[in-house]
Amino acid sequence: MILAIDVGGTKLAAARVTPEGEIEETRRAATPQDADAGTLWKALRELIGPLSAGVTGVGVGCGGPMEWPEGVVSPLNIPGWRGFPLRARLSGLFPGLPVRVHNDAICLAVAEHWRGAGQGVRDMLGMVVSTGVGGGLVLGGRLVNGGTGNAGHIGHVIVEPGGGPPCGCGGHGCLEAVARGPALTSWALAHGWTPRTAADPDHPEERAVTARMLAADARAGDPAAVAAMRRAGRALGIAIASATHLCDLELVTIGGGLSQAGELLFGPLEEALREHARMGFARRVRVVPAALGQEAGLIGAAALILAADRY
Amino acid sequence: MILAIDVGGTKLAAARVTPEGEIEETRRAATPQDADAGTLWKALRELIGPLSAGVTGVGVGCGGPMEWPEGVVSPLNIPGWRGFPLRARLSGLFPGLPVRVHNDAICLAVAEHWRGAGQGVRDMLGMVVSTGVGGGLVLGGRLVNGGTGNAGHIGHVIVEPGGGPPCGCGGHGCLEAVARGPALTSWALAHGWTPRTAADPDHPEERAVTARMLAADARAGDPAAVAAMRRAGRALGIAIASATHLCDLELVTIGGGLSQAGELLFGPLEEALREHARMGFARRVRVVPAALGQEAGLIGAAALILAADRY
Repeated sequence: MILAIDVGGTKLAAARVTPEGEIEETRRAATPQDADAGTLWKALRELIGPLSAGVTGVGVGCGGPMEWPEGVVSPLNIPGWRGFPLRARLSGLFPGLPVRVHNDAICLAVAEHWRGAGQGVRDMLGMVVSTGVGGGLVLGGRLVNGGTGNAGHIGHVIVEPGGGPPCGCGGHGCLEAVARGPALTSWALAHGWTPRTAADPDHPEERAVTARMLAADARAGDPAAVAAMRRAGRALGIAIASATHLCDLELVTIGGGLSQAGELLFGPLEEALREHARMGFARRVRVVPAALGQEAGLIGAAALILAADRY
Repeated sequence: MILAIDVGGTKLAAARVTPEGEIEETRRAATPQDADAGTLWKALRELIGPLSAGVTGVGVGCGGPMEWPEGVVSPLNIPGWRGFPLRARLSGLFPGLPVRVHNDAICLAVAEHWRGAGQGVRDMLGMVVSTGVGGGLVLGGRLVNGGTGNAGHIGHVIVEPGGGPPCGCGGHGCLEAVARGPALTSWALAHGWTPRTAADPDHPEERAVTARMLAADARAGDPAAVAAMRRAGRALGIAIASATHLCDLELVTIGGGLSQAGELLFGPLEEALREHARMGFARRVRVVPAALGQEAGLIGAAALILAADRY
């Protein structure tokens, strides 16, 4: 039995996964906010304790950046862990067992290749478009780690080179700076979008403007919301065209909250992609929504152990 | 003894290469122009005939596109070969021996990794900037082919998404459309460059405007020539930043005629690269001139046989 762990800024999740890759039992807990390293570790231990009997390996997806493959993690959204030796600590709990830690976006890509929309595909990019934009590369049927475990960072492919918006990475014009959820809503607000739900006094919890609200308003025909989705979709299409030419991709899967937007996002994405991916070999690329839901991270983490020959 | 072959639009080259990767003997011939498939094949046979004794394998670099790994080639610059079964024909000449055919840009990248500036590097992109812009990817110490043998096409990474110049691939804003030699000279002429050498009646053979002349005039301080080199350098830097983020590269090598331009090209390249490659892991990337000269294509072709486990 494998223990799979998914460490995120808002929630911790863990599961017992059978050797066949089936999730047997899952537990979730809120990630302690503003907590120190010890409190966070205690919360994770309490979560996984009841799942640990008979475990033969531990796979972990965690927000980056991290030192890889050492698994010393500094997740952007978990300030209490800076240089936290997650892999070593888990090895202490499970002495002698294989423990692997990888970037959460990479685990999502691995999951889609292993059990999702990318099954049987040799060359794919698994993307997640949400608060950030990330991904993982599978080429020749195997996960590409890159020298530091950071291959697949499509969020920092350049889509607006000349004075594009500033990015959290310190650069500008990155795909993430254009297409991450908060960038979309900011752009829409600055271009005349007035969120409908935010004006509803019965739902004060929705005063925070979200990409989900933007997508809903775009579906309802709000011009600025439609334009914002179009801008993000085209940026995604341009970045995917670049990645397809560079890596000779057959498939791109897109998961994360924004991928729920459907045709409003995928329409402009396809338009820009087909405009730019013109080499014969590049025209075969297909872009599809990710097939797995909220358990994808756990499935990918389990694959790090159960299919370690490929991932 | 390995037979290495390099098929280009202007010249054919072939060599006997020892098992240690040393070139023992090289022969070259002009590629017959406006020739039919049979004439081209005859020229190649005559070139390799004297090199064929005791050969145990044949490696070939050829201009793309091609059906890979079948080696059915349709080089852009050799109109007489459209769907020519180069690999099968060579297998007919060398029955029972391994014959491999790959894209010429990939052979150059392989050569730099095997015997050039990329020796010992795990993750690199080998580029060539000349009449076209191409490349090959080595990740995790192994050549990445991609599903159709076309991985490494950095020339079609998008660097000017909004209305960039049209590209030979049918798209627009590709790196190749900006940074290939003929694009540079056209841009410079349109922006006020008057080639000095072209005005010299004593050198009528240099009436054709070349990127070499542009580089010379840039070195002499011609403002439009300098601006053209700067434009190409920045486009290269942007594309390399994108590739570095996506593939977690440690090294990029640049060969081809334009790479001779030195600081005039590499200065703006580094400036744009450092402006855009800001993720911690991406800052380590180094960009260096290719180390091998005109025999690089043959060396890479030989590696397809002599180091087939990696390439």
